[in-house]
Amino acid sequence: MNAATASYIESNKQRYLDELLELLRIPSVSADSKFKDDVRRAAEFVRDKLTAAGVDRAQLFETAGHPIVYAEKLIDPALPTVLVYGHYDVQPADPYELWHTPPFEPTIRNERIYARGACDDKGQFYMHVKAIEAMIATNSLPCNVKVMIEGEEEVGSDHLGLFVTENRELLKADAILISDTSIIANDVPSLETGLRGLSYVEVEVTGPNRDLHSGVYGGGVDNPVNVLCQMIASLKDADGHITIPGFYDKVVELSADERTEMAKAPFDLVEYKRDLGIQEVFGEAGYSTIERTSVRPTLDVNGIWGGYIGEGAKTVLPSKASAKISMRLVPNQTPDEITELFTRHFESIAPASVRVEVRPHHGGLPYVMPTDSVEFEAASRAMEESWGKKPIPTRGGGSIPIVALFEQELGIKSILMGFGLDIDALHSPNESYGLFNFYKGIETIPLFFKHYAALKQN
Amino acid sequence: MNAATASYIESNKQRYLDELLELLRIPSVSADSKFKDDVRRAAEFVRDKLTAAGVDRAQLFETAGHPIVYAEKLIDPALPTVLVYGHYDVQPADPYELWHTPPFEPTIRNERIYARGACDDKGQFYMHVKAIEAMIATNSLPCNVKVMIEGEEEVGSDHLGLFVTENRELLKADAILISDTSIIANDVPSLETGLRGLSYVEVEVTGPNRDLHSGVYGGGVDNPVNVLCQMIASLKDADGHITIPGFYDKVVELSADERTEMAKAPFDLVEYKRDLGIQEVFGEAGYSTIERTSVRPTLDVNGIWGGYIGEGAKTVLPSKASAKISMRLVPNQTPDEITELFTRHFESIAPASVRVEVRPHHGGLPYVMPTDSVEFEAASRAMEESWGKKPIPTRGGGSIPIVALFEQELGIKSILMGFGLDIDALHSPNESYGLFNFYKGIETIPLFFKHYAALKQN
Repeated sequence: MNAATASYIESNKQRYLDELLELLRIPSVSADSKFKDDVRRAAEFVRDKLTAAGVDRAQLFETAGHPIVYAEKLIDPALPTVLVYGHYDVQPADPYELWHTPPFEPTIRNERIYARGACDDKGQFYMHVKAIEAMIATNSLPCNVKVMIEGEEEVGSDHLGLFVTENRELLKADAILISDTSIIANDVPSLETGLRGLSYVEVEVTGPNRDLHSGVYGGGVDNPVNVLCQMIASLKDADGHITIPGFYDKVVELSADERTEMAKAPFDLVEYKRDLGIQEVFGEAGYSTIERTSVRPTLDVNGIWGGYIGEGAKTVLPSKASAKISMRLVPNQTPDEITELFTRHFESIAPASVRVEVRPHHGGLPYVMPTDSVEFEAASRAMEESWGKKPIPTRGGGSIPIVALFEQELGIKSILMGFGLDIDALHSPNESYGLFNFYKGIETIPLFFKHYAALKQN
Repeated sequence: MNAATASYIESNKQRYLDELLELLRIPSVSADSKFKDDVRRAAEFVRDKLTAAGVDRAQLFETAGHPIVYAEKLIDPALPTVLVYGHYDVQPADPYELWHTPPFEPTIRNERIYARGACDDKGQFYMHVKAIEAMIATNSLPCNVKVMIEGEEEVGSDHLGLFVTENRELLKADAILISDTSIIANDVPSLETGLRGLSYVEVEVTGPNRDLHSGVYGGGVDNPVNVLCQMIASLKDADGHITIPGFYDKVVELSADERTEMAKAPFDLVEYKRDLGIQEVFGEAGYSTIERTSVRPTLDVNGIWGGYIGEGAKTVLPSKASAKISMRLVPNQTPDEITELFTRHFESIAPASVRVEVRPHHGGLPYVMPTDSVEFEAASRAMEESWGKKPIPTRGGGSIPIVALFEQELGIKSILMGFGLDIDALHSPNESYGLFNFYKGIETIPLFFKHYAALKQN
């Protein structure tokens, strides 16, 4: 990065942080309709800050759901164009009582910002807004830049697809840059070369047509909660292998070489378990923890409920039991196919004593970025210049469903150059983002633009 | 019943009903501390009505929990003494949205009273208050009568034991009369000769020390919800047999003759399934539905919860999962032993990746009343006189834990002469009690007193 940009960033660090904290105060929870107005307020904040950053234009595109913020600074059609993607919506903050400080009152402790969205994704995408501002202010933006920040990523980006297909010309670019992933450690930079996909369903098992007295009917009538437990338990065997027929058919196994490379990434199992407070890890037999959480598909119950869950005891034989179940996918599994396989299998294993309903939620395709691409090389060089050492390529466990959407609809690959850490506790209480990481990202992003422009010229 | 009493009851029918409705309006929910004052109000109502009925004395006995109502009318120490037991507290009414009319706004539809507690137990015990009033008013009470109506039956009668042991002299009686069970049909009288016991526990499975992102950690960390489902599923085999070691050791099997007798009770499986809206029943292999719901022990999950159960999707790998589990017991299982067996087994089947906590709730011993006793004969004759046919002896599925307590501490057997129906939907939304049943009970109870006094004289 040139000296002028570095100096500009340095002098504006406090304002950058203050603006991020202001954004974090807005409870832009997309999953819960009662926060609808706050979600819009966050979109307007982002638009206004992009305008202040010096872009040619910044506006809200309305959708049937939450608005999408779009901005651009076009310098020269001969230069490459980078499209930055992020999301201003956040996960629900429940359970509130587990937060040490309120989720929407950002607090700085131990050089970290604690708030819902601190890392996922406000802290991360806002680094781009500030990096772009710094480059424009010092007249050192070497590419055209477009910015697309949506408000529904946490609930499946339902309306982004339509926006993308209706605005192909507007969104034309050479690469999409996304900061929504993590590095291995603050002194071990890494680049995510893959993301798992997602299939998410809600199941409901119904037995009798009403809650029953468990004394009068217990033993004679099948209990939907017991049945749901049995059905869920049967979805995996003792080796942690998912038993849905056809589930693994399309899974691409890593080669021996790839597994060897992957095993080189630093990973401390003792520390991993200590941090989580568990005695033992558990997963698919024959795979390491890193492999289980990145290149193997999974099945997790995200929520389960049925019967009486209030204070004290109630001897009820409940009418219904429900669960939210999601599966992380790897290439070449697809959400539509896996959701279909799950649904057919789950319906087939239901005993005759109950009725079962499976309702699909949003899904997402898995994704892989080839490490021999110009885009990947630019990011790698940017991080190497910033850290003084090459980033390690890693395969991520999480999903960013729209990455596959972008490839499908716009024909553009995405670079996942994120600056978070596993301890950020995404989706959990006490989510945080390091001050180090926030500023490191703002300093590294202009390096990506520099290297990308240089590589594309050759 | 003599003509004077019958006539008295007839002329006061409307008032009897109005008083019951007034009692039903009081939300005396013992399980939920926010209804504490209403529980007391219900106790005071019962005390006042007993006073108005003409008893010698009626008072509230304070306990560390809810008060106990005690009343007595002593005529002659030479006469037998009947102790009437009931409970003025009711089950929680959740889920409120499933009630057609509000649970604490009693409504009469199709000759039935709809309200929480309509049958269990207000409608039933109040029949005794009115029958006693009628007998006193017409000077035809042939036994001494004592009345004990408590306020914690639905939560385990925690303080009744102390009251009973501290008041043995006061509560001395020849028989205890309880109306908290049902008849087979309005034209098929029956008498419950047994009750199942109860063991109730709450279990909590903890994995990681916080909720985790299911993409970052899914597949590598054992999910406590999945684990809880596996553990619960393993508690029964495919034949509906409970797998806890030692669980069935003390169970007394019925003889072939007893099973043949039991099979004679009218039971329409097609109608049973139609009423519950199920295609198939399910239970322990080798036993009929009647046997499964009365003379065999059971295990049911009454409630389960874990993870995100709000609106929409949240891809969380939860830290904890919990369940409320209860087991109905039969002679000679005991709640302490079964709770201990459950706890040891459940802790032993937990994988090393989680921690498990088992918290016992209230329990109750199973109970059997011999059909060759004077008490049983008196009830049988009373029902025969009232209906014109002998009642069928049945074994009940539900539990009334204090029945065993009474036998242990007071040395007195209980007669379960109840007037409810299975369709009363105890513990469920839209609980109800038939007007026919309410009045039939008030007419039949004096017949018990008459026959009991006569039989005891011989």
